[in-house]
Amino acid sequence: MRSTAENAQLALLLEVSSTPKPGNVDRAREYPDLRFEHFVAGAVGAREGLARAADGGPVGESFRAAIAGMSAQSGGNTQFGAILLVTPLVRAAAAGDLSPAGVEHVLAETTVADAAEFYRAFEHVDVAVEDPPEGMEDLDVRRGSDAVPAVRERGLTFAGLMDRSAPTDGVAAELASGCPRTFEVADHIEAESGPVTDRAAAAYLDALATDVDTFVRAQHGPETAEEVRRRAGAALAGEEDPAALASEFVERGINPGTTADIVAGGLFVALERGLEV
Amino acid sequence: MRSTAENAQLALLLEVSSTPKPGNVDRAREYPDLRFEHFVAGAVGAREGLARAADGGPVGESFRAAIAGMSAQSGGNTQFGAILLVTPLVRAAAAGDLSPAGVEHVLAETTVADAAEFYRAFEHVDVAVEDPPEGMEDLDVRRGSDAVPAVRERGLTFAGLMDRSAPTDGVAAELASGCPRTFEVADHIEAESGPVTDRAAAAYLDALATDVDTFVRAQHGPETAEEVRRRAGAALAGEEDPAALASEFVERGINPGTTADIVAGGLFVALERGLEV
Repeated sequence: MRSTAENAQLALLLEVSSTPKPGNVDRAREYPDLRFEHFVAGAVGAREGLARAADGGPVGESFRAAIAGMSAQSGGNTQFGAILLVTPLVRAAAAGDLSPAGVEHVLAETTVADAAEFYRAFEHVDVAVEDPPEGMEDLDVRRGSDAVPAVRERGLTFAGLMDRSAPTDGVAAELASGCPRTFEVADHIEAESGPVTDRAAAAYLDALATDVDTFVRAQHGPETAEEVRRRAGAALAGEEDPAALASEFVERGINPGTTADIVAGGLFVALERGLEV
Repeated sequence: MRSTAENAQLALLLEVSSTPKPGNVDRAREYPDLRFEHFVAGAVGAREGLARAADGGPVGESFRAAIAGMSAQSGGNTQFGAILLVTPLVRAAAAGDLSPAGVEHVLAETTVADAAEFYRAFEHVDVAVEDPPEGMEDLDVRRGSDAVPAVRERGLTFAGLMDRSAPTDGVAAELASGCPRTFEVADHIEAESGPVTDRAAAAYLDALATDVDTFVRAQHGPETAEEVRRRAGAALAGEEDPAALASEFVERGINPGTTADIVAGGLFVALERGLEV
């Protein structure tokens, strides 16, 4: 019987082990400077922070601790979004209500201190994000701790921050709305049979074909993001080879990280609900 | 900066991530019922027990806890030998002397209680071992807890048990002699450059070509074990393709687990000495 913190760590590890996941680092594909081993080390380092959330620690502080641990490897940002999504899910599981309503409840209880810790997490790692909306420049996450006074002044909670970031960031959009895509991925993984990493790869392709990946949009623009969505659909329909698509996306540096984050969240939910590995 | 328990867990994960490792499960090869994901889950479950050893817990109790956690997956025995080797290394590291002398010191301090816990660990998982030597049938590890009275009666310590098992088991032989092969693998990994999983795969092939794998000998007999050693040498010399050899060994169910265990130990030593991932 695995603990909630163990399931959270295992979800991160199973996500990166699932293959093929077009564009993302997986067991069979990696970038020269962002390798499979960096994700493995990231998951090892994240566990302490995830365990804090499972023990009832504040979302913000637990998240920042997990990101600090994740960053103790030389690949850079490996699982920032996945940990952002999983930390509130861990809190919901620890509170005994791992459901959309349970996630909404966890978010509703977050504070300005949680938002401040979220900003502090950016001190540990470079994360690719879109520019903030007009009038929110002082809240640009890339400012890290420098943005904390503005967070306090505006009385911005972690939940408020997710609401504001939802239009540009897929993970924030999940957290702001009870994680519908995450629970859908969990259902998908549970409905299939066979190796868990095969099921997670199938759920990934399905999610990639359904919604535009906001990380790809932030890095490569809306046209490329739409191309990724369309071609994932073609792979699902058997019109493209997923493995060839995976190699092409990696070659072009197209890395649909948000979709991978949601798969990590879905794996965590499925594991908590009893998915056997 | 990773903790000792984190390095131990990371060593288990990097070991199984290293490829090609002829005959063993790795990132690219698995058996239908013993898959990459089982090893990942095994490493997740082992962490608590390894953390106990890092906190100064007894070798036997820490080991048994790590094996209990490792077993919380459906693949069966994934890392029994690796955890057996790594647990005393963790204790040596925690005591500030991760060296052959440090390992010998840890072993010298083990007790009959540690040996009893070692036997109890066999309750959690089926492990392939050779028959015990004549006159030691009551100490057959496959008896699990049933052997504990005999352990007590003979006053057998964990170190004494490793001494007795050394002729038939490569991991016991390591522990009984200050882990010379383990430290050699660590040196090898540190001497190379590039991705850590490539370096560990190279160190594995080298170790496989040098000494007969006792797990292969227990499962397939001495002739097959010698063939494995010889052909690993041929792969090292460029006369065989390591990837083809890996596929053939997996096909034949030849699984040099002891050599993989020693690579896991070597990875732990290298990580503790500052190997960057």
